[in-house]
Amino acid sequence: MNSKIDTYPIYIEPFHVDFTGRVFLGVLGNHLLNAAGNHSQKRGWGIGALNENRHTWVLSRLSIEMMEMPRNYQHCRISTWVEGVMRLFTNRNFAIEDDMGNVMGYARSVWAMIDMETRRPCDLLTMYDGDILNYVVSDEENVCPIAGHGRFRFRDAALVRTIDTYYSDVDINGHINSVKYIEHILDLFGREQLERGIRRFEIAYKAESYMGDTLSFYVQTNGEDEVDVEVRKNCTPETVGEVVCQARIIFNHVVSDQK
Amino acid sequence: MNSKIDTYPIYIEPFHVDFTGRVFLGVLGNHLLNAAGNHSQKRGWGIGALNENRHTWVLSRLSIEMMEMPRNYQHCRISTWVEGVMRLFTNRNFAIEDDMGNVMGYARSVWAMIDMETRRPCDLLTMYDGDILNYVVSDEENVCPIAGHGRFRFRDAALVRTIDTYYSDVDINGHINSVKYIEHILDLFGREQLERGIRRFEIAYKAESYMGDTLSFYVQTNGEDEVDVEVRKNCTPETVGEVVCQARIIFNHVVSDQK
Repeated sequence: MNSKIDTYPIYIEPFHVDFTGRVFLGVLGNHLLNAAGNHSQKRGWGIGALNENRHTWVLSRLSIEMMEMPRNYQHCRISTWVEGVMRLFTNRNFAIEDDMGNVMGYARSVWAMIDMETRRPCDLLTMYDGDILNYVVSDEENVCPIAGHGRFRFRDAALVRTIDTYYSDVDINGHINSVKYIEHILDLFGREQLERGIRRFEIAYKAESYMGDTLSFYVQTNGEDEVDVEVRKNCTPETVGEVVCQARIIFNHVVSDQK
Repeated sequence: MNSKIDTYPIYIEPFHVDFTGRVFLGVLGNHLLNAAGNHSQKRGWGIGALNENRHTWVLSRLSIEMMEMPRNYQHCRISTWVEGVMRLFTNRNFAIEDDMGNVMGYARSVWAMIDMETRRPCDLLTMYDGDILNYVVSDEENVCPIAGHGRFRFRDAALVRTIDTYYSDVDINGHINSVKYIEHILDLFGREQLERGIRRFEIAYKAESYMGDTLSFYVQTNGEDEVDVEVRKNCTPETVGEVVCQARIIFNHVVSDQK
């Protein structure tokens, strides 16, 4: 096993599965973030160590593509590695396997490092004398075969819901937590569509929102299986608010005569 | 260690803590339910085995009282045991300890067994020839020092919020999950009140609700530190709906001149 790649066991708990008996995508996202945190912490790049120097990681993109979603009571594992580092961003990939080593899906993520006081991005290549480059796993060593993060183009998105945010939405920093956006976005869909299952989910985080902010969800259908969602905060009758995140959901294709 | 008492390790993940850095009560409740499920499964009374005979456990009451809430990244453990069995209900208790064995809090729960088709309760004392009595731990063996479940009396409760329920609220059976009620109830409170921390939380589950039901929250303040909440489903302008659950929250007392 490549020493730059960590494997993180997960177990699918009964309250963490949806009405199809498969893990909620938000819960899976949470497991991925925990695997990432664990991997970077072991290499001296964990949030605890970084915070002492007023730095922290910020998740910018997350794309998850699943051939099969883990089921209730299933033991699985997540392997994670750093695919590359640029000046302001680093790419981290994931593979999700069952306990026999069969691949169930993959994920890609993009992270920035910011200064917690100025909120400005840091140069990853010079921090700690470029130490992060020691952990890069090349494509020859381990490949992540899913497509990269896509681009969003909102042209005819329609407002479908506005929600208030509360205590349970907020993380230790007082921000709406990354996983909660995924939950609220999937909550836009009805039972029939969600029963199809999600093949790919992408999210781009654009701005922070806080407890008490209102979130407005704009939905645009790109095709039979694909829907884009833009989340804006604190829209008013006069203003369109600020974009907080954008997501693309690709549902499993259902052949219509099987319906 | 008493062989009728199991110990279940838990770890407080970063996305499972609130803005005070302490675990969300709903997440702690989820851990308690997992510890319970694990304990009963090991003794042949798990949901998997029961479902084969069309039986399942239904949580009726849960009361959690904490001296100290587990913190971010903390390793803790939950011990759980059966305190007693009546014909239609069984009492299960919990102790929550840190990894040095210092008690952080306790919980009590009441469960019924139902037939999944008729939804009628079963006689626990005669099922499997009274096998469940083999697991009872008397008060002499292990004591749970917190008060029993209280009674609710709603006299002047005011409607403070009505919400729709969605995909993320629902468990594998299509019911709004027990933990989600706890989250929605705590979401009624503002930042200042939640910063005090919760000393005791009680909930009585009265009826099931389903994805798409609306939930209305009626709040009654009993004193400086104590609030009762009644949740009703599908209220209309003409009807008061049906009671789904009732909860009591006792916040940590704050001496006013310290405010």
